[in-house]
Order: sequence, then structure tokens, then C-alpha cells
Amino acid sequence: MTDTEGHMDPSRPQDRARRVIFGSQHDRILERLQGLDPALAAHIQDFAYDTVYEQSALDLKTQELIACALLVSLGSPPELRTHLRGALNAGATEQEVRGALMMCVPYLGFPRAVAGFEALKSHLDAQETKKG
Amino acid sequence: MTDTEGHMDPSRPQDRARRVIFGSQHDRILERLQGLDPALAAHIQDFAYDTVYEQSALDLKTQELIACALLVSLGSPPELRTHLRGALNAGATEQEVRGALMMCVPYLGFPRAVAGFEALKSHLDAQETKKG
Amino acid sequence: MTDTEGHMDPSRPQDRARRVIFGSQHDRILERLQGLDPALAAHIQDFAYDTVYEQSALDLKTQELIACALLVSLGSPPELRTHLRGALNAGATEQEVRGALMMCVPYLGFPRAVAGFEALKSHLDAQETKKG
Amino acid sequence: MTDTEGHMDPSRPQDRARRVIFGSQHDRILERLQGLDPALAAHIQDFAYDTVYEQSALDLKTQELIACALLVSLGSPPELRTHLRGALNAGATEQEVRGALMMCVPYLGFPRAVAGFEALKSHLDAQETKKG
Amino acid sequence: MTDTEGHMDPSRPQDRARRVIFGSQHDRILERLQGLDPALAAHIQDFAYDTVYEQSALDLKTQELIACALLVSLGSPPELRTHLRGALNAGATEQEVRGALMMCVPYLGFPRAVAGFEALKSHLDAQETKKG
Amino acid sequence: MTDTEGHMDPSRPQDRARRVIFGSQHDRILERLQGLDPALAAHIQDFAYDTVYEQSALDLKTQELIACALLVSLGSPPELRTHLRGALNAGATEQEVRGALMMCVPYLGFPRAVAGFEALKSHLDAQETKKG
Repeated sequence: MTDTEGHMDPSRPQDRARRVIFGSQHDRILERLQGLDPALAAHIQDFAYDTVYEQSALDLKTQELIACALLVSLGSPPELRTHLRGALNAGATEQEVRGALMMCVPYLGFPRAVAGFEALKSHLDAQETKKG
Repeated sequence: MTDTEGHMDPSRPQDRARRVIFGSQHDRILERLQGLDPALAAHIQDFAYDTVYEQSALDLKTQELIACALLVSLGSPPELRTHLRGALNAGATEQEVRGALMMCVPYLGFPRAVAGFEALKSHLDAQETKKG
Repeated sequence: MTDTEGHMDPSRPQDRARRVIFGSQHDRILERLQGLDPALAAHIQDFAYDTVYEQSALDLKTQELIACALLVSLGSPPELRTHLRGALNAGATEQEVRGALMMCVPYLGFPRAVAGFEALKSHLDAQETKKG
Repeated sequence: MTDTEGHMDPSRPQDRARRVIFGSQHDRILERLQGLDPALAAHIQDFAYDTVYEQSALDLKTQELIACALLVSLGSPPELRTHLRGALNAGATEQEVRGALMMCVPYLGFPRAVAGFEALKSHLDAQETKKG
Repeated sequence: MTDTEGHMDPSRPQDRARRVIFGSQHDRILERLQGLDPALAAHIQDFAYDTVYEQSALDLKTQELIACALLVSLGSPPELRTHLRGALNAGATEQEVRGALMMCVPYLGFPRAVAGFEALKSHLDAQETKKG
Repeated sequence: MTDTEGHMDPSRPQDRARRVIFGSQHDRILERLQGLDPALAAHIQDFAYDTVYEQSALDLKTQELIACALLVSLGSPPELRTHLRGALNAGATEQEVRGALMMCVPYLGFPRAVAGFEALKSHLDAQETKKG
């Protein structure tokens, strides 16, 4: 199913979303998922990224801002850091990422939002340390 | 608190988000909330809309697409229809709204997403009936 | 297990919480649960009410205000109306019940809280109609 | 992705789970999903049913009992009725379905479980009416 | 909005709830929130504490017991420890706090409740160590 | 309530489910729960295990596969590892446990399922280390 869709436009390879979002972590993330369960890794790659993300009227930045908000709704699991980085990799500014997290305050309440901002701080602090 | 922020830019009145999102339903929605609890209505107006929505680096369309996704995460309560309409009022195309709902599939699973698409269908059908 | 606890104070029968909370609806509610599943009905009566509610350092009013908040966290299922009535039956004022629902705003966000206030309004309106 | 897997055993067509679960409702359900969003319908058919359900070490009855429990965790959306029927179609007895719903009591609490048993009663009552 | 309310009764300053709940941790908590996001910190202080908590028919002890139960519903994030301490600071006994956590058993199931009691134990153990 | 039920069939002692699921960890787990709150420990033992688990038309393996899925729905708290082990102790193969976790993908989305598979990997790795 994904093949025919993805190959229609050769200038937009079917794995673009996945490559931009994961960035330099691409191979490490896929290996970790592969280590959890090969079928799970295949579903995440083939279905979530190369099908759902690719077949979308939304640009990747908006998709990733939505992904961040949805991960906050789930209690900010580790995937949130992958997608905070993904949103930034897709062109969102830090202030736009903060805007996505802040939308969680009226819809989900403060504790969920605070956990989201903590994940962001921990990502930004790690970036700072690397540069420093 | 909101006053100083909102008044800095006189070209952007503090209630812009609320007026665009609610559109022609503005007074009806506020009256309904007022009937539930006056303090609740005040918090939604003053804090959620005139503070959180206004003080954001995100444009209103992106905010509303995120709101739709977050409402799907809560099981698509009636507010979802308000914000599906809000996203369209803020300039999102139907395909972009579908894109926001589809992001819920990989993050929240199918049942939550199906309920979101049902709310969209019910909104679009009602629009069709009005026009027809 | 519940027997020894409940019988220690003969002035406080083991079914007090259940009788106060359900009030005039007591038999109707138990019959409805019995119709769903006899074992489920037994667990709700013997474990939830006659054990957990009875063995508590909290007074019944506080327990019911907490029950209302927890039911709002679950998306305000029909049980919420039973426990809004239960909180009032246990001596809470309408303003105190509103206080419990309002606590859901900072912790769970507005949509959950709005659904809670709608259940309260629907209960109060029904009371009004009966009296009227 | 699903093709190579599904075709390895020609005696087990790739749409078996879907046909058993949906039963006589098969075409009606797919049409309804198609009416919500064609891509959503395709994902549910190709990914959820013809891939995830088919590639499993679990028999269909166990899968459906798990599906019922997971749908109760989501607050018993309409899909629960489809999968209560699906569990029975796949060979579960009414008592086994009650067993799956009862497991939700210790893990999710009573309100979620009660909603699950209400969906079951409503399905069984409708069956009774048809027969009657 | 909060100003007029808070200033009506000069004997009850607008930051009373916040000062009692946070206690000796007041400045540390606000600084940590400030470090996450200044607007988030402002919303928690001005809206959650100095508005919602202050404008309530419930006494602070009851509010904090409800807050503890709601935080258990969210999976016992770190904020739970702040509000277990807050409930005790507001005059709840340890047995009353246990009563609030135990209410989560029938409404949310055992795993959520166990996580709540673990947060309480970890708070009480830390207190013991300090005294010791 | 549980006494009369459990003692009816002397060949099936009332604590069978609990002893199989907890296995060699039985006393350690009960002591830990006892240390959290004696009434909580009693409810888990008497109600959850010796009543709900025992009075079931489902075999223990199916009950534990359902328990694993429900714990994934709650965000994979530490209890998940107890019940992954419990499912294996009750006769499930590793592939059947993977099947139960994979059912969470279509119903709950990927992040919840990934956390479930991480708990499984961490359990299997610990087993490997012990043997090694």
C-alpha cells in the first residue's frame, strides 16, 4: 500500500519524514526498536513513518508539533524527546515548540504540561553541554 | 496578568483567538459556559483563550490543529467539534484537519482516531445540510 | 475480611456509606448492577462500598468529593451523577461540590472539568424540575 | 510488507481475522469507515487487521478477549461492541467474555468495568430481541 | 480578575494556598518552574494557585486531598509528592492522606493506587531520615 | 465472601493464581505491599487475587495476557514486569506474550506498546544474566 503512494513523487522519497525526524539518531533508534521486537520495528518504520507521516496534507513541522502534544497527553514517555528534537529538526523554533507544549495546559492541565517542559529542558541542557 | 501582555500590540486585540475560533457561535458558547459555572466561564475566557492562546509563538491554525489532536486524546468530547470548526475558521483546509486527526493513529491507536473522524464527519454533514 | 472491621462499632453499620450515597436510589442501583453481572454487583457492594468506603479515616463527605474528582478524571461517566448526589447526600453544599469539580481544572484541564460541570447542571436541573 | 507474510500459508488467507471478527457486519463496518476517511479505512484493514492480527502467536479468541479489555481501558467506545461480538464469533463463551471484562476491575477500577458490562448487556439484549 | 477577589479580604492574602502547600520548598519550587518556562511558572502561580485554589468553597486540606487523588489518576507524577506534603501541611493526618489514596482503588484500580502509596512511603521515609 | 467460594473446591486452593503469578517472588511482593499500607496489601491479596482472579471462567494464562495488556494501557508501571513474569509462569510462551503486547499497537498506539516491549526486554535480559 505504501509503495505506490510513496513512489509517485520521486523527489519525495518515502522515508523523508523518518530521516528528518530521527536525524543523526536514525540508525541508533531503528536498532533499539529492532532489539525490542523486529515486527514492532517494522510496523513503526513501514506504517507509522513511511505511510502515515508521508501521506499527509500537513508539513512535517506541524506534524511534529502535534506529535509532541500527543506525547505529552501520554505522560511524556521517552519518545517525547525524539519528537521535540524532530520538531526542531523539521524547522520549528524553540518558541514554537514551547507553544505546542503550552497548548497542553488548557487541554490536559498543568502536571502533564510540566512534564513536557521538563523533557524540553533536559533536551536543551544536553545540547548546551555538547556545544559547551 | 494578561492585560499588560495583551495591550502591548493594539492591532492584536486580546480576544482575537476566541473570536476567530468560536466564530458565529461565540455568544452562544460563552452563555452555555456561564450557565454551567460563572467562575469556570471566566477561567476559560480569561485564562485559556485570552492568555494562553494569545501569548503564543504559534499561529492560530497550528494551535487549533494541536487542540483537535489533544481533544482526540481525551476521547473526543463535544469540545472537539468546536475546535474542528475553529481550525477551519483559522484557515486550515479539510485535508489539514484530516492530517491532524490521522496523527492520532500512530500515537493513540485507532479507536481514539475513529472517534475524531466521526466528529469531523458529523460537523461536515451538518454544514452540508445547512447549505443544501 | 470486612466482617471483623465492620462489626467493631455496632453503631456504624457496615453499609452506611452505601445507604447514604445511594439514598432513595439504593435498590434501583443495586438491581441495575445485578442485571449487568451478579459478581460485579457483589464486588461493588462488598468490596468498594462495605470495605473500602467503610474502613477510612475520611468522613463520607470528603470521600464523595474525592470520588467526584476521580470520576471527572475518567471522563465523567454516568457514575458521576450518582456521586454528585452522593456528595450532597453526605452533607456537601453545592458550592463545595463546585469546588471539587473546579480542582479538576488545573490538574486535568478544561474539557474534563466542563464535562463534570455539565453532569452537575443536569443533576440540578432534574432536581429543579421535580420540585417545580 | 503484509503480503509476503500473509501468503506464506495459503490455507490461512490474510483477511481471516477481519472476516471472523466482523462476521455478518463486515461490509457495513468497512463502508462506515470508508465514509469517515478512505485512508483511515485502509489503515484499519491493511495494517490493524490484515497485518497485526494475522501475524500473531495468539489465537483469535485470545486476541479478541485482549481487544475487549483494551477497549474498556479507553472508556468503552462503540468499537467495544464490535469486539465483544468478535470474541464470541471467535469462539469465546459468554462467561469467558465476562472474565475478560472482570479483569478490568482490579487494573482499571469499577467505573471502566461497569461501562464494559453495560456494552455487553446491550449486545446480549439486542441478540435476544432478534431471536425473540 | 484575581486581584479584586483576593484583595476583598485583607486577612486572607492571595498567596496563602501556595505558601501553605509549598511550605519550606516555596522558593525552590517556583525557581524550578521558572527554569522550565517563565510563562508556565506565571500561569501556575497566578492562575492555578492564586486564582483557582483561592476562590474555593473548600478548605485547603480538602483541596489538597483531592489534588492527591487527581495526581494519582495521572500516574503519580513528581507533583504528587508536593501535594502529599501539601495535604499534611494543610492539616491532614497521615491516615487521612492514606484515605485519599485508598479512594483511588475502586475508581482507578490497584496499579494507580500502588504508585500513590509508593510516593507516600518515599515521602515519609525521607522525613524519617531527616529527623533520625 | 471469598471464603465460602474458595473453599468449595478443596483441590483448587484460593491462593493458586497468586502463588503461580508471583512464583518465587511471592513473599517479597507481599512484604513490599505490606510496607506500603497494610489495608492495601490485604485488598490486593483478598480481593484482586483470591477473589477476582479465582472466580473466573478464564484460565490463568489468558488472565495474565490480559493483565499485561491492561498494564500497558496504564503506561507500563512496574507491575507490568510482575505480570509478564506471571504470564510466562502461567504457561505462556515468549511469542504469546509478544502477541499480547502487539495487540496494544492498534488499540493504544506505538508509544504505549514500545514501553511494554521495553519492560519485556528488561525482564528477558535479567533472566539471561541470571542464567549466564
